[in-house]
Amino acid sequence: MKVAYLLYPRFTALDVVGTFQVLAAAPGTRSVFVAARAGAVVDDTGLCALQATASLGDIAFADVLVVPGSDCSCDPDPTLVEWIRVVHPTTTWTLSVGTGSSYLAAAGALDGATAATHWASAQRLTDVGVTYSDERVVRAGKVLTSAGASAGIDLALTLLGLSHGPAVAQTVQLTLEYDPQPPYDAGSPAKAPADIGGLVSSYYAQRCT
Amino acid sequence: MKVAYLLYPRFTALDVVGTFQVLAAAPGTRSVFVAARAGAVVDDTGLCALQATASLGDIAFADVLVVPGSDCSCDPDPTLVEWIRVVHPTTTWTLSVGTGSSYLAAAGALDGATAATHWASAQRLTDVGVTYSDERVVRAGKVLTSAGASAGIDLALTLLGLSHGPAVAQTVQLTLEYDPQPPYDAGSPAKAPADIGGLVSSYYAQRCT
Repeated sequence: MKVAYLLYPRFTALDVVGTFQVLAAAPGTRSVFVAARAGAVVDDTGLCALQATASLGDIAFADVLVVPGSDCSCDPDPTLVEWIRVVHPTTTWTLSVGTGSSYLAAAGALDGATAATHWASAQRLTDVGVTYSDERVVRAGKVLTSAGASAGIDLALTLLGLSHGPAVAQTVQLTLEYDPQPPYDAGSPAKAPADIGGLVSSYYAQRCT
Repeated sequence: MKVAYLLYPRFTALDVVGTFQVLAAAPGTRSVFVAARAGAVVDDTGLCALQATASLGDIAFADVLVVPGSDCSCDPDPTLVEWIRVVHPTTTWTLSVGTGSSYLAAAGALDGATAATHWASAQRLTDVGVTYSDERVVRAGKVLTSAGASAGIDLALTLLGLSHGPAVAQTVQLTLEYDPQPPYDAGSPAKAPADIGGLVSSYYAQRCT
């Protein structure tokens, strides 16, 4: 199973690595990190750089394509969108984490579909005609989209259940000791204190203007 | 708050990035990735390379030190252990994820303490005189240790609660949409089917001989 992770400036590191750590643990997985150019790509904190091992031109197909989100995906890069348009028809599964779904939408992979995204960017999906769902992981045919950042782990386990069966997914879950116990219960707008929800919404609104 | 992440060949990527994504979202955080030499450091899958932004000699102190685990930490690198011995006394908090606690133990930071590690490496801690706990996050004074891989997210949120207070921790949790919903319930040996637990134990035993 060849899994291609798309990297671009200001991607969110956990969107990629949470998903990667799960999928890479499945038997027979080959992973490739793809970017405009091979080399280091810096995340949306400006501090964490992942190494792209291939350029867009090197990769024309994948069994699984993973598109991460960013702290701001209001203007998906047209070069990346065009690459997704080429690769998506070759995949068995196409995935996005968080606002990565804005890239899939721009590439026409979510036409008429329901999809997830980071909760603070729901309106952006709606604006381009995609129905937003606040489910953690949403399936629309071969396209799986997820909520923000940490949801990539749930997304990837869901994919492994579909592609390899529950026993492999459970084996990977145990390998990564994925028995989450958040010390607080504020991980969604419905659960977080209202003032905190407002604060985070304002932050994202400012990032995307 | 200066946070130093120690990178070394065959580190587990999610141990670092799960923790990083949480701590980097807190106000006033500066992050540095430290390795024997600055440059790309390849993880334990051989496929994911993070960029070290400083060498060991560049960093003599940190407010927070984070030591990730590996798929095999049976022989902690003496050079890294010596560096931890120097930096640990300067920290306000010292953290490890998964088998990173073996590095802390080798550096004397867990003398007489109780600590967490990846469940499959519990015996390794016991062998060096540290009391193993299967809690997700364990505090021993200024040292916080966690279970494997994905537990770094819980660890980092716990730290933020201590260092910045619950409101900041909850704000970051909502920013990362950390509302985990694993599609299976197999994230600990007590929850996973017994045959899967045996399989993963055998895997780790083979990696470390």
